[in-house]
Amino acid sequence: MQVSRRGWLKNAGVACFGAASGGLTASLCGASTPPAAGAPPLPWPYVKLDADAVAAAAYEMHYKAGCCYAVSGSIIGELAKKVGAPYTNWPMALMTYGGAGVAGVGSLCGGLNAAAMVTFMVAGSDEKAKQGKASEITRDIFNWYSQTALPDFRPAQPKFENVKIVSRTNLCHISVTKWCKASKCKISSKEREERCACLSGSVARHTVELLNAHLVGAFKPAHPLSEETQSCRKCHDKGSAREDARAQQDCAPCHFTKTPHPKL
Amino acid sequence: MQVSRRGWLKNAGVACFGAASGGLTASLCGASTPPAAGAPPLPWPYVKLDADAVAAAAYEMHYKAGCCYAVSGSIIGELAKKVGAPYTNWPMALMTYGGAGVAGVGSLCGGLNAAAMVTFMVAGSDEKAKQGKASEITRDIFNWYSQTALPDFRPAQPKFENVKIVSRTNLCHISVTKWCKASKCKISSKEREERCACLSGSVARHTVELLNAHLVGAFKPAHPLSEETQSCRKCHDKGSAREDARAQQDCAPCHFTKTPHPKL
Repeated sequence: MQVSRRGWLKNAGVACFGAASGGLTASLCGASTPPAAGAPPLPWPYVKLDADAVAAAAYEMHYKAGCCYAVSGSIIGELAKKVGAPYTNWPMALMTYGGAGVAGVGSLCGGLNAAAMVTFMVAGSDEKAKQGKASEITRDIFNWYSQTALPDFRPAQPKFENVKIVSRTNLCHISVTKWCKASKCKISSKEREERCACLSGSVARHTVELLNAHLVGAFKPAHPLSEETQSCRKCHDKGSAREDARAQQDCAPCHFTKTPHPKL
Repeated sequence: MQVSRRGWLKNAGVACFGAASGGLTASLCGASTPPAAGAPPLPWPYVKLDADAVAAAAYEMHYKAGCCYAVSGSIIGELAKKVGAPYTNWPMALMTYGGAGVAGVGSLCGGLNAAAMVTFMVAGSDEKAKQGKASEITRDIFNWYSQTALPDFRPAQPKFENVKIVSRTNLCHISVTKWCKASKCKISSKEREERCACLSGSVARHTVELLNAHLVGAFKPAHPLSEETQSCRKCHDKGSAREDARAQQDCAPCHFTKTPHPKL
């Protein structure tokens, strides 16, 4: 835990009476310079979490401030209980910004955005090797989300029974519209809110499962891109002839859905 | 500035000698309970920033750790200089996670992701009214990005002269591919890296311009969705007959580009 110089001096002032009356020894009291300002460097300490408990917390938190708040807050909240600082100093409301694909825009799913942020927080750093590992875990979460029938989290007392869909996307508005079509419910229905709360539970749980595996060196990517997309990448990805598409997600759900690919 | 109880007690210990020898008065030393743990509530204090200076910093920072790090770090770095805590305690490396559309996935542009996060940090909160204002500013940034010929930031010493495109998207991989087509450069070229560094400059500058306006109550949305999209929303948005598309971005760049909309 580090504090600003101003904060340190303020604490030094308010603390001295209590410290003196508490009989602290001279060895504890001999420091003469404040600690440097700044958060501890990444990665922040991670301990094994109960994935089911985190999922249940995410479900409940979704009803307070949406998906991005729920997935980040459920994991960071558990780490705050078990580890303390620096997690206790995290501004929990901040990730609310990512809700409904960022500010309601319908872009990247807020649960995935939060999962990526937390993964970097506990596995990333300013070192390239750790960045690579955090990115590898994040991409596996994104691919799992796109390829799996979700939500697969069911709360103890569901408000509605849920319809699962395979979204084939990391984008909020595509995922929601597919679910609306499958469930015959509207975007502003209570059933849709329950669906996204359950989805926050699913994403939080899966993220914790992968981070628990990473903690003991047991993480292995389990959701590669489709063979079809690997084929696309042979002509469009880095090192290919065209080298004009920088993406690591399945192409077919959006491209050439109604018209064929130009003849090769 | 607030610290954890453990951090407070530690500081109380290391501070008491210095405090006693410094002759602090009893009134400063009379507190008997530590401050509560946690970051200060949002919004964090914002002061007017020099948008051009922030843009120049974002351009430079892009070459260190990518778009999301650059846009967030350039703004937070300036606030840390001018305001101090809590910005001095922000883990600057964290937003690296959003680079290249999050971990290289090519989803949401990392510059926009960072702009949305910082906007919520200084304009949002757990109050619905402030969340609404932060979202309104964020959506205007997203629409500006989609509708404007970018990058419009030019560094003092550009590595390459740039081609501008109107991306019509908030997604990294679409924006990059359109630029590759216009510039005839590849995704892994130095020219593409320079283009995205300039784009980070553009996004950081525009975000600061809107936050400066918000600071004095002068923010007004300037980039509405297209008339065509407003027409789409009449049938698909909340309150409409179908109510099956939750998005606030222009539809046409992805939908019905090669096949017509079903007859109404």
